[in-house]
Amino acid sequence: MDIDRSFIERAITLATESVRSGGGPFGAVITRDDRLVAEAGNRVVLLKDPTAHAEVLAIRKAAKALGTHKLTGCVLYASCEPCPMCLAAIYWSGIRRVVYSSDRNDAAAAGFDDRDIYGEICMDQAERSVSFRQVHVQGAGEPFKLWNDMESKIVY
Amino acid sequence: MDIDRSFIERAITLATESVRSGGGPFGAVITRDDRLVAEAGNRVVLLKDPTAHAEVLAIRKAAKALGTHKLTGCVLYASCEPCPMCLAAIYWSGIRRVVYSSDRNDAAAAGFDDRDIYGEICMDQAERSVSFRQVHVQGAGEPFKLWNDMESKIVY
Repeated sequence: MDIDRSFIERAITLATESVRSGGGPFGAVITRDDRLVAEAGNRVVLLKDPTAHAEVLAIRKAAKALGTHKLTGCVLYASCEPCPMCLAAIYWSGIRRVVYSSDRNDAAAAGFDDRDIYGEICMDQAERSVSFRQVHVQGAGEPFKLWNDMESKIVY
Repeated sequence: MDIDRSFIERAITLATESVRSGGGPFGAVITRDDRLVAEAGNRVVLLKDPTAHAEVLAIRKAAKALGTHKLTGCVLYASCEPCPMCLAAIYWSGIRRVVYSSDRNDAAAAGFDDRDIYGEICMDQAERSVSFRQVHVQGAGEPFKLWNDMESKIVY
């Protein structure tokens, strides 16, 4: 039995159910040791939360279920290739393996900006469609200095 | 008066307060028409949520405050250049202007992976440190087909 295939099928089922319940066409599943830890569908419009992608919600649920901000040893299954927000969330979470089915081109064909946002993020700031201004102020380094000096900090 | 400077100073104050209360050294403020809409400090470890960056929390709060998933016309002020997760969240939210003070190199000097994750996201999948597998299954396109056929959908 291909365990990847069965969890991907579950992610696609979640994506289909998501559309039926008013969400976007995406689903995600997180496992550890081939056992389900968390699953979610896209809820951007339903929750009025632009960050409520299936993968982000599944990561947040998995972290809650496991009681830690580090999802070491977990695998993420996504009905579609994660967008840059979700991919960076995967890196921050410590997940080291991703399995997916549709890709950013399939998402683009359905009207989603994933592929364009990959392009924007990898551009120089000056070329992006969002405008950026760096303001140098005195004390800008203070939070980092305080962080570095703190012995009790938990690194993430 | 430089309004950008005053909101950036607020973001840096939030970053400092965040460290003092057990969070990471980052703060973010969202405004519309130069008025405060939402603000947040980093809460990754405190909330046990790897996605709880200051910018993501501020975006979620602003969307809740404004009652919409689209933050059109809002400006995001960040004590440090947003990481790729936060930057992609900015694109999804419709925010078109970002002001920041410290940058990804300052974050790297304090031990944060922002710069490395930018590198990873812009690499081909095969070169990344996270492993990827695409699994083609029958019915993978079903969620997108259902989405495309749905006349009542709210595009995001």
